[in-house]
Amino acid sequence: MAKDKKQNRPKAITPKGFRDYFGSEVIERNQMLQKIAEIYHSYGFEALESSAVETVEALGKFLPDIDQPNEGVFAWQEDDQDWLALRYDLTAPLARVYAQYRNELPTPYRRYSMGPVWRNEKPGPGRYRQFYQCDADTVGSASIAADSEICMLLCDTLENVGIAEGDYKIKANNRKVLNGILESMNIQETSKRDAILRTVDKFDKVGESGIRQLLGKGRLDASGAYIDGVGLADGEADIVVAFLTSKGSNIETTLKNLKNLIGSSEIGLEGVNELETMAGLFEAGGYGSNKISIDPSVVRGLGYYTGPVYEAELTFEIFDEKGRKRQFGSVSGGGRYDDLVKRFTGQAVPATGVSIGVDRLLAALKEKGRARASGLGPVVVTVMDRDRISDYQKIVTELRNASIRAEVYLGNPKNFGNQLKYADNRGSPAAVIEGTEERESGTIQIKDLILGKKLSEAATLEEWKDRPSQFTVRRDELVQKIKEILNSYK
Amino acid sequence: MAKDKKQNRPKAITPKGFRDYFGSEVIERNQMLQKIAEIYHSYGFEALESSAVETVEALGKFLPDIDQPNEGVFAWQEDDQDWLALRYDLTAPLARVYAQYRNELPTPYRRYSMGPVWRNEKPGPGRYRQFYQCDADTVGSASIAADSEICMLLCDTLENVGIAEGDYKIKANNRKVLNGILESMNIQETSKRDAILRTVDKFDKVGESGIRQLLGKGRLDASGAYIDGVGLADGEADIVVAFLTSKGSNIETTLKNLKNLIGSSEIGLEGVNELETMAGLFEAGGYGSNKISIDPSVVRGLGYYTGPVYEAELTFEIFDEKGRKRQFGSVSGGGRYDDLVKRFTGQAVPATGVSIGVDRLLAALKEKGRARASGLGPVVVTVMDRDRISDYQKIVTELRNASIRAEVYLGNPKNFGNQLKYADNRGSPAAVIEGTEERESGTIQIKDLILGKKLSEAATLEEWKDRPSQFTVRRDELVQKIKEILNSYK
Repeated sequence: MAKDKKQNRPKAITPKGFRDYFGSEVIERNQMLQKIAEIYHSYGFEALESSAVETVEALGKFLPDIDQPNEGVFAWQEDDQDWLALRYDLTAPLARVYAQYRNELPTPYRRYSMGPVWRNEKPGPGRYRQFYQCDADTVGSASIAADSEICMLLCDTLENVGIAEGDYKIKANNRKVLNGILESMNIQETSKRDAILRTVDKFDKVGESGIRQLLGKGRLDASGAYIDGVGLADGEADIVVAFLTSKGSNIETTLKNLKNLIGSSEIGLEGVNELETMAGLFEAGGYGSNKISIDPSVVRGLGYYTGPVYEAELTFEIFDEKGRKRQFGSVSGGGRYDDLVKRFTGQAVPATGVSIGVDRLLAALKEKGRARASGLGPVVVTVMDRDRISDYQKIVTELRNASIRAEVYLGNPKNFGNQLKYADNRGSPAAVIEGTEERESGTIQIKDLILGKKLSEAATLEEWKDRPSQFTVRRDELVQKIKEILNSYK
Repeated sequence: MAKDKKQNRPKAITPKGFRDYFGSEVIERNQMLQKIAEIYHSYGFEALESSAVETVEALGKFLPDIDQPNEGVFAWQEDDQDWLALRYDLTAPLARVYAQYRNELPTPYRRYSMGPVWRNEKPGPGRYRQFYQCDADTVGSASIAADSEICMLLCDTLENVGIAEGDYKIKANNRKVLNGILESMNIQETSKRDAILRTVDKFDKVGESGIRQLLGKGRLDASGAYIDGVGLADGEADIVVAFLTSKGSNIETTLKNLKNLIGSSEIGLEGVNELETMAGLFEAGGYGSNKISIDPSVVRGLGYYTGPVYEAELTFEIFDEKGRKRQFGSVSGGGRYDDLVKRFTGQAVPATGVSIGVDRLLAALKEKGRARASGLGPVVVTVMDRDRISDYQKIVTELRNASIRAEVYLGNPKNFGNQLKYADNRGSPAAVIEGTEERESGTIQIKDLILGKKLSEAATLEEWKDRPSQFTVRRDELVQKIKEILNSYK
């Protein structure tokens, strides 16, 4: 019977691909988001928190010939037949919100959003089905100044969260240039253009020769599988590669290289001119090429971008899981998309925006030692005499009134060793001990737990030799002494 | 054709019962949560952010004889047959997390969580299917000190967000007392006890005579419908009502009244003793009866509470939708529940905790004028000459460097009136105007938009008469003058 019962118990596990965040993980992320929001807000962007649940219709995840929502979203059917789904990004809800409230919202509408999104995809190591995004978008402005502003916003945001100048690089490009080049090459089919787009997006992974093969006949990948190519002739592939590698030593050279590639394409020229305008705005804003550069190697894979695209890369080196040095890489990207609102209203609404990969940026801050929620736990006031819990409570209140994080031990106080183990487990800087003897003599004991740990790790520690890890102080010195301990570990 | 196309467009609406939050709504809530977290953290509670999605099994929302999840949750079936659901509160996920990580987590485990929860219920006015909760719980402590701590934590939290002493009251009670009284009355059936519990929970709505009727034969409610009663004899109902109204002028009287009602019930006496201990801890902690009182009229409807229960009420008066004065009422409640973790592990784990109704508390702060995200929009730098956008960009950067929220107008600059309308719509304190003339003379114009609005609202405004709403300053005085305007509206 007992066994049966056990088998009927629910399993205490997160669903596959989901995870929990504990303590400083939560605090560090919130602190980072707060610092991002500060900059977004200072640029005139307004907060928006849309609902996590959208109609599948609004998300646009129904395939035309299928009566169930597309893979990739978590969806369910309501009793009244409506399909609902969890948002998979923050851009689709923005398009819905702007279409819904367009008469009340200012135009242009600058908004930022931060929050979880959900993807019904196969989870993998480090790939979760719920993760945070943090977006800034400007809806309703066709001006290139809006795109430029987002690039400058990205610089200020990265610096505000703690990525130093020199450790990041914003790269901007323009889809119209590539479109112009493809036009000059007389490649018109959308499917072929999309295939080229997806291929060139792999430039930083497979390099110049890899891209040349993938644009042509195809190539063997590292696993030995043969990847079919796009089927361009060698001369055509050369032109695309020339585009990707057209960045010159200065902006003038880059623009000249691009002009040579676009031939007589009008859309191509428009793209080059837009890049020139953006470069001018960056310079005027004081964002030199060490911060933002025009770099045609950045194309962004998504089909829906229509003009400028941009990406933030962190340039400092880290060791990957195999111990090899590599650049940290991209933490953010975006661009101009002009058709998302049109789905709802029939009218094209120009928009441009960026999404920050919150987990990746947080990982970068940790790498740089810049995400530091204090790992210190609370001061633990131990319980020597369970009938005197109200006295211990008073001590805790006294510490808290002095802005010291503190708690009274609430487990079974019988085994005093357990209380100290608990304090260790909490990462407490100090335990406070008040038995009858101390009580009667108006004193109190403090155990410096960090020092205690250090002393137990090394037999002789010259630097600590004058500091005993446990000592008695006058009761009225308690707060002062605890403060001294806390300060010594700052 | 055009019409067909229109009908195929998705509707831009939030799903029924969901809503979006804009600008200061988002900021005010975040600021309040931040202030709550400060206090929770200072009490030694650790942040936890569990995933929004849980297995239905872990949430426990499968009815035993039904193969679909219970109503009340949003759920869907995965391809591999697992049912997943959105969390409906923060307590069920805590039980799962504690069971899952119990070997790594400290015991007792004090944790706080804040975030949205989802209820698949019929929405109504002001009742949404996604809303925020903000919980603090202590898992693994059987000590009454843990319950007392949560009551004191509530006081400090309410004061920290801006509810003044005297505007709130924490009321504590103990389920064991009522259980003891029912034991003395020889009412044993769980269903009858639950019915009594649900009934007495309506005490503050229907009053003493209403409760007496509902405990007995029943009563006509305001709509004219007859509500069946629990069926207690008059003498029995009298005892229950005596319990609800047993609060005396001081704690000693209340405890004496309760002791008279519990007869010889051991569990009842345990409850009274626990209340006495709690009262002692409140007093020792400096939380007088003006802040926390023992009040037997608070029972909390939920069946799963096993000991102390507590509630935070705001006592200041507001006008309800019908213009009648009433107390603001409850913003938070909780209690001790000892069986939630047992579902997973088979071992009872004592726990106690509280949930703050985030939307209600925020509404209270607004009522008190204490939730004030600045309603001021950014300074808007207008565009007089679209070729000089980089100059306007420089002005914006200059303002931002002086910590002034500012943006350049990004819409079509052709119609200058639209730019000022936009600035008004944004709630901008000031617009900055630099045409060719100003440029050449090293000056710049500032339009004080708030003053402008005031002047246009009243014909003569003595207090403003020396301040024109639009004026010209030297270009190098811009930042200083804008600061003066901002300061005058603080």
